[in-house]
Amino acid sequence: MKIKELIKELRSKNIDAAILINKEDSHDINVSYFSEINANGSFLLVKKDATLFVPPLEYEMASKTCAVKVENSGNKRLTAVLQGHIEKSKRIGVNFSAISLRRFNELKKEFNDKMFYDISEICRNIRIIKNEEEIKRIKEACRITDKIFELFLRNCRKLKNERDILRFIQDKFAEFGAESAFNPIIASSRNASMPHYELCSSRIKRGFCMLDFGAKYRNYCSDMTRTVFYGIPNKKERELYEKVLDVQNDSIKCIRQGIEGKSPHYSARKELGKLSKLFIHGLGHGIGIEVHESPSLSKYSEDVLKENMVFTIEPGIYKKNNFGIRIEDTVLLSKKCVQLTNSSKELIKLTL
Amino acid sequence: MKIKELIKELRSKNIDAAILINKEDSHDINVSYFSEINANGSFLLVKKDATLFVPPLEYEMASKTCAVKVENSGNKRLTAVLQGHIEKSKRIGVNFSAISLRRFNELKKEFNDKMFYDISEICRNIRIIKNEEEIKRIKEACRITDKIFELFLRNCRKLKNERDILRFIQDKFAEFGAESAFNPIIASSRNASMPHYELCSSRIKRGFCMLDFGAKYRNYCSDMTRTVFYGIPNKKERELYEKVLDVQNDSIKCIRQGIEGKSPHYSARKELGKLSKLFIHGLGHGIGIEVHESPSLSKYSEDVLKENMVFTIEPGIYKKNNFGIRIEDTVLLSKKCVQLTNSSKELIKLTL
Repeated sequence: MKIKELIKELRSKNIDAAILINKEDSHDINVSYFSEINANGSFLLVKKDATLFVPPLEYEMASKTCAVKVENSGNKRLTAVLQGHIEKSKRIGVNFSAISLRRFNELKKEFNDKMFYDISEICRNIRIIKNEEEIKRIKEACRITDKIFELFLRNCRKLKNERDILRFIQDKFAEFGAESAFNPIIASSRNASMPHYELCSSRIKRGFCMLDFGAKYRNYCSDMTRTVFYGIPNKKERELYEKVLDVQNDSIKCIRQGIEGKSPHYSARKELGKLSKLFIHGLGHGIGIEVHESPSLSKYSEDVLKENMVFTIEPGIYKKNNFGIRIEDTVLLSKKCVQLTNSSKELIKLTL
Repeated sequence: MKIKELIKELRSKNIDAAILINKEDSHDINVSYFSEINANGSFLLVKKDATLFVPPLEYEMASKTCAVKVENSGNKRLTAVLQGHIEKSKRIGVNFSAISLRRFNELKKEFNDKMFYDISEICRNIRIIKNEEEIKRIKEACRITDKIFELFLRNCRKLKNERDILRFIQDKFAEFGAESAFNPIIASSRNASMPHYELCSSRIKRGFCMLDFGAKYRNYCSDMTRTVFYGIPNKKERELYEKVLDVQNDSIKCIRQGIEGKSPHYSARKELGKLSKLFIHGLGHGIGIEVHESPSLSKYSEDVLKENMVFTIEPGIYKKNNFGIRIEDTVLLSKKCVQLTNSSKELIKLTL
């Protein structure tokens, strides 16, 4: 749905032809983004219009649903297919952030009369601002995520292991016409001190339990974390949770169009005070067809936050071999930040 | 389990330090391969020994299971972390098939006194020959795949849609301590004419139905396709199936150590005769930690087949809007080819 924007941008930069490659050692998700199909072994050639070149085994399926013209590459090499298509093009756009060095060297050797330009920023800038349809799909992915969390709460009594919860969640996506956007993280008690814990092999124990999951609906992702408590939290535990929750809510409230992506990250660190040394990742990341994409809300971010960006807000604190608390929502930056995942953030106490 | 081989190979090529990057826009699965953990946002520095640099949020988990030394990169930029580690190294190895052009340009600018060498072939050559432990894991992944096919046959009466079969298969992996190596392809009747059909939305109809799936067990994959028949096949259909089966069995029989990877592909095409125009992909592909890796058994293959390579043999014929037949096994090249997936290849007739 954004191929016209790409064509327009390329023209405005005087780029005669652009090649986006998702083949062998160069994996460019922009090929799927602009062609709107899962385009393995393919590449997109963009001139006045766009053509997706696919191997014979993908041709029939691709032609059914692709958003751009499809041609059969006949299993020929990329450089061989390009011959006859770019001989009149002088300035060639390539995604320097996706093409492998090997592949680029091959292109440069074969087409040594061409000038190659990096179009990664062009692609990034198109993807970073979501249009109406993209927002609609992300909202639906978020709604499904909320729904699954609700179902988890209704069924949690019979889920005794991290893996039970994992499988319960994974089984639900298909019922809602979605799939899992990433491997869910279910981390009970001290396992939650590892933000990306993936083993999911422990029995649920007393303490915080982190559930981080998201749906992918018609290619668009959501991402949400809720931290619940098994047993009765003591005063210290309640305070820690409340602190993270305050920081999360305040982050959502303070974000406005035009601020730098790193600014809410530093505000959150400041608000966490002494606890900030336990906050060992960025405050959030953009989300769309990838779970992690631009903009970044972290220390090294060079992004400025703008209308219709979609990203996560996820402060977290982690104490080694002890506990972890993270609260994460997917939000849309409209006039202000609108939460798209809406599961309750009050500390939920569950029976062991 | 192969890090020592890498260190030895680098030394023999006089490469002082190698950097393998799985971070941001450079995705090198070799980082996971050599470190034996899922190493997102990480990079591996290999000198006399190997160190995996991980972001703080991965540090605790990584240190528990990593096969090499782990250091916390403190969220610093790659070039900043490398300062102080490679100042005495002159010849630097980089995987040209995995590093993005952008990242390489950054390295070259920061370390303009270094010489960079492509180590993609070194990595490929280590991975292409499987050791005992790797073969053991692939065998187990194959055993699980056979087991799941058997369970499918026992339960197929109640599975009325492609999606029912898909979910049945996907649900089984966890029971065997494995996961799905890739999105299974379940393609009934005319859908099977698309070798990589993924929609899985149709009711099972009379005709061939293709099931292509595989397990991932302790990081190692299997890949198998069986084509069953719903209803009673007519003579022509039986003959087509028998032809593909003969080609598949003959391919397995004829492969020997020392032959070129493209040779069995051409033999299979020859044996298919007129049907070869319906055979629109390669005969097979290597398999290991990735479902598709080296060697290649196809037209463009430059590989020579050697002892302890593991690959698939999968001739297939596809007639648009009509039918598809593919029979695929994962095999190990020992003295001769040993089939690792062993589900029956007789044409199985199922009741609609």
